[in-house]
Amino acid sequence: MAGRPHLAAAEALIGRPGSRQAIPTPAAVLDLDALEANLARMAGRARAAGLDLRPHAKSHKSSWVAKRQLEAGAVGICCAKLAEAEALAAAGIDTILVTSPIAGAANAERAARLARDLADFRIVVDHVDGVGELAAAGAPIQVLIDVDVGLGRTGVAGPDHAADVARAILRHPDLRLLGVQGYGGHWQHMAGADARAGAVADGMARLTNAIAAVREVGGTVEVVTGGGTGTFEADAAQGVLTEVQPGSYAFMDREYRDALGADPDGAFRQALFVAATVISANHPQWVTVDAGLKALSTDGPLPVPATPGFETAAFRFFGDEHGLLMRPQAHAAHRGDRIDLVPGHIDPTIDRHEVLWLVRGDVLEAIIPVEGRGASQ
Amino acid sequence: MAGRPHLAAAEALIGRPGSRQAIPTPAAVLDLDALEANLARMAGRARAAGLDLRPHAKSHKSSWVAKRQLEAGAVGICCAKLAEAEALAAAGIDTILVTSPIAGAANAERAARLARDLADFRIVVDHVDGVGELAAAGAPIQVLIDVDVGLGRTGVAGPDHAADVARAILRHPDLRLLGVQGYGGHWQHMAGADARAGAVADGMARLTNAIAAVREVGGTVEVVTGGGTGTFEADAAQGVLTEVQPGSYAFMDREYRDALGADPDGAFRQALFVAATVISANHPQWVTVDAGLKALSTDGPLPVPATPGFETAAFRFFGDEHGLLMRPQAHAAHRGDRIDLVPGHIDPTIDRHEVLWLVRGDVLEAIIPVEGRGASQ
Repeated sequence: MAGRPHLAAAEALIGRPGSRQAIPTPAAVLDLDALEANLARMAGRARAAGLDLRPHAKSHKSSWVAKRQLEAGAVGICCAKLAEAEALAAAGIDTILVTSPIAGAANAERAARLARDLADFRIVVDHVDGVGELAAAGAPIQVLIDVDVGLGRTGVAGPDHAADVARAILRHPDLRLLGVQGYGGHWQHMAGADARAGAVADGMARLTNAIAAVREVGGTVEVVTGGGTGTFEADAAQGVLTEVQPGSYAFMDREYRDALGADPDGAFRQALFVAATVISANHPQWVTVDAGLKALSTDGPLPVPATPGFETAAFRFFGDEHGLLMRPQAHAAHRGDRIDLVPGHIDPTIDRHEVLWLVRGDVLEAIIPVEGRGASQ
Repeated sequence: MAGRPHLAAAEALIGRPGSRQAIPTPAAVLDLDALEANLARMAGRARAAGLDLRPHAKSHKSSWVAKRQLEAGAVGICCAKLAEAEALAAAGIDTILVTSPIAGAANAERAARLARDLADFRIVVDHVDGVGELAAAGAPIQVLIDVDVGLGRTGVAGPDHAADVARAILRHPDLRLLGVQGYGGHWQHMAGADARAGAVADGMARLTNAIAAVREVGGTVEVVTGGGTGTFEADAAQGVLTEVQPGSYAFMDREYRDALGADPDGAFRQALFVAATVISANHPQWVTVDAGLKALSTDGPLPVPATPGFETAAFRFFGDEHGLLMRPQAHAAHRGDRIDLVPGHIDPTIDRHEVLWLVRGDVLEAIIPVEGRGASQ
């Protein structure tokens, strides 16, 4: 990679004993044993519940991880936006649902191109104008109606609105209505399985009303997609969804760990760590590590150290490139020490990193690109 | 670009009347008239104060902007880390100071490579072990001693420590001591020129003590570098620095605008906007735009709309890909509307974007890469 000599040089580390400790920091380090356990666990839960599993790539943004999910039994992949879908499509993923509505003729043409190029492309829509834009793009496109189940971010506002959008879709022979989507992002991190189950029940009632309205105007609803890592148990119990879209279970983060704890929804292993190095240790109260605002997202809870001796050392952000770690009682904390951090919120943390460093035990096995990163929609 | 067809397609917009409104969102849009005014203003201030200007590229991470700064009279560029320096060096910038200490033999070798490849490469050091690592890398390297002026992030802890590090540098014939650095990041956003002046005076007293200690052991201090956008007036008045490192003045952000207001330090124009589009407008209280945690940094104050009719509409983050904009009284707010946002904190916001969209008035003039982005040190 031009301008990235340290990544090219790091290829020489692959396969060497102890090479995990030589990965240049800050680095998004993926523990393959934990990843594989998480993928198998979610695939098994979906199978047992009779639900199709379509993992959300917004959490990892990587074709390599998406392929492992498909091998583990997923029916396809979700992407949050066109740019993520285009990047994963270019890397060989050909079964993609885009889970956010788009706006504008140029974006509708991008969707049409994906629909032509991929084996199975789907996108959600939440407005009759959006239906018109997709229809005008001139390609057969599979669509689902996005239904607001209480989050208020996107989705049709209620059953009448769902019926309007369904009618608009049915008017266009190029558009094929597959079903509906209802995603409650705000339910995912609620503490307590009962609280999540109650919220899901309310939301699924809204979704059920929308489904009835779509069917009433002659629309097909074969697919009912939604859900996330935090609501799998409740989603399975409600029985409205036919397909679930969990993302964070693959890598996990502190936000899910804190909220879900040992609930079945939270019992996944932490697979992704941001490795950092102490680059300055001159201060009596803290040391400075090379992971800051650009290596870890700041929107969720603060990252926490996972390295033995540092677990109780509080982390604080200390500018773009640096973090502060209070000196732990259990460790002298020297310049050059390496510390693994559990990210607060995994999706925007992965977005900061060009590559994932795949490790098994203490050995670096591969370096893979995060193709779907970046702000572009 | 593989997997980025929308960027390739956007090249066709360049030079077309009104093309600014067709830039695919979210996008980091750079107003060239404002940028040029900002670059000229800071260059003029430095010239008038007799200070060398070495703008910090951490705010823009772009070789194109760095070249404009050099053309406007800068003596060189600052980078926050090796990866930023390597990326800008690969794009033709050959006069770089790395303003953070590094740790480890592998990173010292990267510094040595830059020292061999560039016309003028400099790096700071804050520990005798760091001196040893640079010396062992086997290349002539120009170094400055990083002095903690009260931030506590990096830097030698006091005059005795400065003398120790200076002695270590002087022992190695491959290392050339140029001077010292003292950067008070925490001073930059203090509200009120008097508060900033007082903090700078305290910090410069610490720096003066360190300079005396370095000279006492036979060290040269030709360069005294530090300062930022918020403290230029105070830095010039103190007369300790020979070189200033402002970064944010080129693009500006809400954090600086709020803190500095119409002070001479704050009187730069907002040059960088994150353009967003309303992608869903089904909710009665707010609309949803396509700029969220991955298009705007969350560590500073919230972004604010700059588009007429939307200025008073409050922005909130609404997940990875979305933001919420309260429906403004001054505008109907429709699906498809475009809104320019002033970022809260510019440096980590730019880090989210692959490219900058350069506009003059309403015309897209060029699309340039943000080569120095990414978490890698």
